[in-house]
Parts: sequence; C-alpha cells; structure tokens
Amino acid sequence: MTVTREDRWTADPGELLRVGQGFRLADVDPDTTPGYEGRKKHGRSDLRAGAEELAALQERLYAQSTVDPSTPAVLLVLQAMDSAGKGGIVRHVIGATDPQGIRLKAFKKPIAEELAHDFLWRVEKEVPEAGFIGVFDRSHYEDVLIGAVRELAPPGEIERRFGAINDFEKRLSESGTRVVKVMLHISSEEQKARLMERLERPDKHWKYNPGDVDERLLWPRYMEAFQTVLDRTSSDHAPWHVVPANAKWYARLAVQALLVTALEDIDPRWPAVTTYDVAAEKRRLAAT
Amino acid sequence: MTVTREDRWTADPGELLRVGQGFRLADVDPDTTPGYEGRKKHGRSDLRAGAEELAALQERLYAQSTVDPSTPAVLLVLQAMDSAGKGGIVRHVIGATDPQGIRLKAFKKPIAEELAHDFLWRVEKEVPEAGFIGVFDRSHYEDVLIGAVRELAPPGEIERRFGAINDFEKRLSESGTRVVKVMLHISSEEQKARLMERLERPDKHWKYNPGDVDERLLWPRYMEAFQTVLDRTSSDHAPWHVVPANAKWYARLAVQALLVTALEDIDPRWPAVTTYDVAAEKRRLAAT
Repeated sequence: MTVTREDRWTADPGELLRVGQGFRLADVDPDTTPGYEGRKKHGRSDLRAGAEELAALQERLYAQSTVDPSTPAVLLVLQAMDSAGKGGIVRHVIGATDPQGIRLKAFKKPIAEELAHDFLWRVEKEVPEAGFIGVFDRSHYEDVLIGAVRELAPPGEIERRFGAINDFEKRLSESGTRVVKVMLHISSEEQKARLMERLERPDKHWKYNPGDVDERLLWPRYMEAFQTVLDRTSSDHAPWHVVPANAKWYARLAVQALLVTALEDIDPRWPAVTTYDVAAEKRRLAAT
Repeated sequence: MTVTREDRWTADPGELLRVGQGFRLADVDPDTTPGYEGRKKHGRSDLRAGAEELAALQERLYAQSTVDPSTPAVLLVLQAMDSAGKGGIVRHVIGATDPQGIRLKAFKKPIAEELAHDFLWRVEKEVPEAGFIGVFDRSHYEDVLIGAVRELAPPGEIERRFGAINDFEKRLSESGTRVVKVMLHISSEEQKARLMERLERPDKHWKYNPGDVDERLLWPRYMEAFQTVLDRTSSDHAPWHVVPANAKWYARLAVQALLVTALEDIDPRWPAVTTYDVAAEKRRLAAT
C-alpha cells in the first residue's frame, strides 16, 4: 500500500495552525513542521499532488459561479516579515492553479491617492468576485503592522483600524467570501541568512533593499505588533493561521492544504444547465 | 546525443507564422504543425522545457524593471473563434510562469460604462507596466471582428477603429511594449467536434453557450473579418501570427516559443546595484 498524501498529515493543518484564544506567537517554533510527518522530498511530491486537487476544485468553483452568482470566493491574505517566502507561496502554490481563476494583488507602499482615502479604500477594489481565488500579497494588515511599529498613524487611529478590519472581514464573509489569513513565520536567524544570501548572489541583489535591515532592527516590535494583530483579528469568520516557514517546502504545503480545505468546505459542484436544452442544442449544432 | 528543443524546430515560428504581405488565412491548414518536426509526446516535453526557459527570462525581465523603469513589457494578444484554445494557452503556457509577473485580462462583452467611452478606453487601463507580461484573452480586436460581423457599429466607425488600433499599438511599441498578436486558427469541423464534446459531457455543460452556435453559423463572415484584421493591422511593430490550433499541443508550444523569442529579443539582464553598497550592507546585516 502506498502512503497517500492524507496519510502524511497527522492532523488537519487548518485546525492545528489556527490562531485561537490564548495563542502565543512566541511559542511557535519556526523550524517545525506541525502535523506533517513527511520530509522535504515527500513534501515536494505531496505539493504536486495537492496542486492537481486544488486546480480541480478551483475549476469547479469557477464553473459554478458562471451559473450561480451566489457562489463563494476565497481570499488568501499573506503577511510576513521580509524574505519569509510570500513570493514562493505565490509562485509554487498559486502558480500551480489556473491563472484564469486567480485575482492576485501585491499591495505596495501606498501612493498619495491611496493615502488620501481610508486605508480600506484600495483594498475593497481588489476583493475577488464569486468563483475566484483572491490572493493578497501584503494587505490592509500593513496598516496595523508597519503602521503601528513605525507610528505612521496615532494609537487611536490604529485602534479604529482594528474595528474597521473586523467589520470589513465580517462583511466579506457574510457576503460569501471565505477569508483565509496566513502569517508566514520565520526566525530572526533565518531572515538574516536569507538576506545575506541576497547580498552574496549578484542575481539576487535586486531583491535586497537596505530598508529590510532597518525593519529587521525592529524585529521584537514587529513580533509584538503581529501578536496584537493575531489577538485582535483572528475571528471565526476570518481566522489567522501561523505557518512555521523556516522550511519553505512545509510552508507551501501547509498553505496549499489550507486552500484545499477552504474549497472542500465550499464543496463546489458542476452546475446543472438551466439556460438551454442540451438535446436541442446537440441537434442544432449537428445541423451546422 | 539527445535531441534538444531547438532541434525539433526546423524554422523560427516567429518568422514562419508571422502575417506578412499577401498572407491568405484561407491557405493556412489548421491541422498542420509548421516548423516543428516532433509529435505530441515531444511537444509536451518541449513545453515543459520551454516553461523553465520562459520563467527564467520572465524573472530577469521583472528584476531589471525594479531598477530600470525603461525596461520593456510584453503584451500577448489572443484572438480566436470559440473553443479554439485560448483558455488552454493561458492555463498551460501562461500558467507555467510566475503569476507575480503576469497581468492577465479577459475582455468580456462591454458593459454600459465601457460602451459610453471609446472602445480603447477599457483596453488602455489593462496594458502591462514595465517588466510584466500582459495577456489579453480577447481584446480591442473584438470591436472590429464581432463589431463588423454583427454590424454593432457602422462601416465608417469600424474603419476609424483600424486607424485607432494601429496608432495605439504603435504608441505601445514606441513606449517599450513588445506586442505579440496571435490568432489561434481551428477548422470549422474541429470547432463542431469541440462544441459537441461540451454538450456530451455534463462537467463541460457550463462551458457551452447557445450563442456559440449562432456565431458559428457566421463562420465564413468571421473568416473574412479576420482576414481584414490581419491585412490592416499586422505591422512591423505589432505583427500578427496565425497559429494552426487543431493540435492543441502545437498551438501551446508555438505561442510559448513566440513569447520566449520576444523575451530573448529584449534580452533582460540582472540589474547592477547602484542604490546601495553591497559590502557595507553585508557588514550592517552581519551586525544585527
């Protein structure tokens, strides 16, 4: 008997990695691979198998939405310290799906027009429509992470944003969007090694930004800000998951599993045709 | 000696499939695989090899654009009769690249707001920025294809649009966008078989639209409209390529080759760092 993908997960990563009451970020070891008993080589082959599963579910979700406008959407929110592997998740997990069903948005430092609106203005425009998988590479959470650490907004405004985020995500959820929030969690040592690699390889120099070290110097304050975010915004309708990410292969596998689970919960179906008569259309087509 | 990818191309598909003076669409046999001497199984393995090549070029293009705003973009324009395989190109050719460097836009039937503007209004908003590969699944060419066949606009307006398209694409080209236009060309018999398959498989019913048969009944007029488009808008700065597409594997391989060639012509380079001092940053990072 061959070991199947499911056999190597000893627990549902959706439950295991989920941020609930009393969660302490400091207690998560970024080197671990919770719930998965395979190693890197297994992880890689399971990622390929999972990609097929995800793509099949994605196609059904999209198909259903062409007939039923109340079909859900999925929104994956990715947050992390620099070099934690958001790009790798997009490339290897999202990249293995059908681009036609993906809405990917990388949020950069806000421009003047965005700063002249409420912080959720630019975010609202990017939420996925029915049948799509949206992916936020950074998100409205920047406004309560770097926003708090760098004091880009006063404490009262940061506080207001937490309320606004919870209301926003509740509305998304109630209007049919499954929100999956992921913090990729690397250790400070791992970040140092990854940033150093960018400096050591000329083909990686473009990925390095001196600002990354400036932020790195504030690591403890960022961890505090993340803890606050997890405390304040991990809800039943939009839970956070903290994914240990020192092992890139594990982080990719876990995020893929979270997406597969979200889609399995939606359980999309091939839509039954109601807008035309199959037999009549066969005859009409045959006559051409 | 193993046969390499290039060995199976006996001619550059960019040259071979390009629409030049005196091109006759009626002379293209959709069943052929011009310039490629391999068969389906070779095509599939060459597609995988090409995907790595394309992804590597794409990363360099994106990298260059982070330092040099004058870096080109690439814009792939896909047009075809229904069921010709545009979706398969997006899934299998574009899907094998990094989604972070792709701007995909599927143009649907225009909505009221779009119709209240010039036909290029909605198109301009979707052109890719420096360093990106844009993909138009349908495009401004709908406005001179279905627009002409269905007489959605008077002949004088269709005529005006040809001029506007040429000016628009010239501007794109001169401002740094490499425009690669592709017509996927299937036979009428092949379309019939593909539409029938959609009717025969319940999991494909959602892809079938009775309107597809209505358009199919106008096949000769669409071929005329395509011939006019090719005559009027295949330019040095934005050439058309007609890709025989009865063999899906060939069409995918050929479009991939067109993209690889466009990127090779751009010849993107890992950018040299000018904004920071590598040695100084290494010391600064090491001290953290």
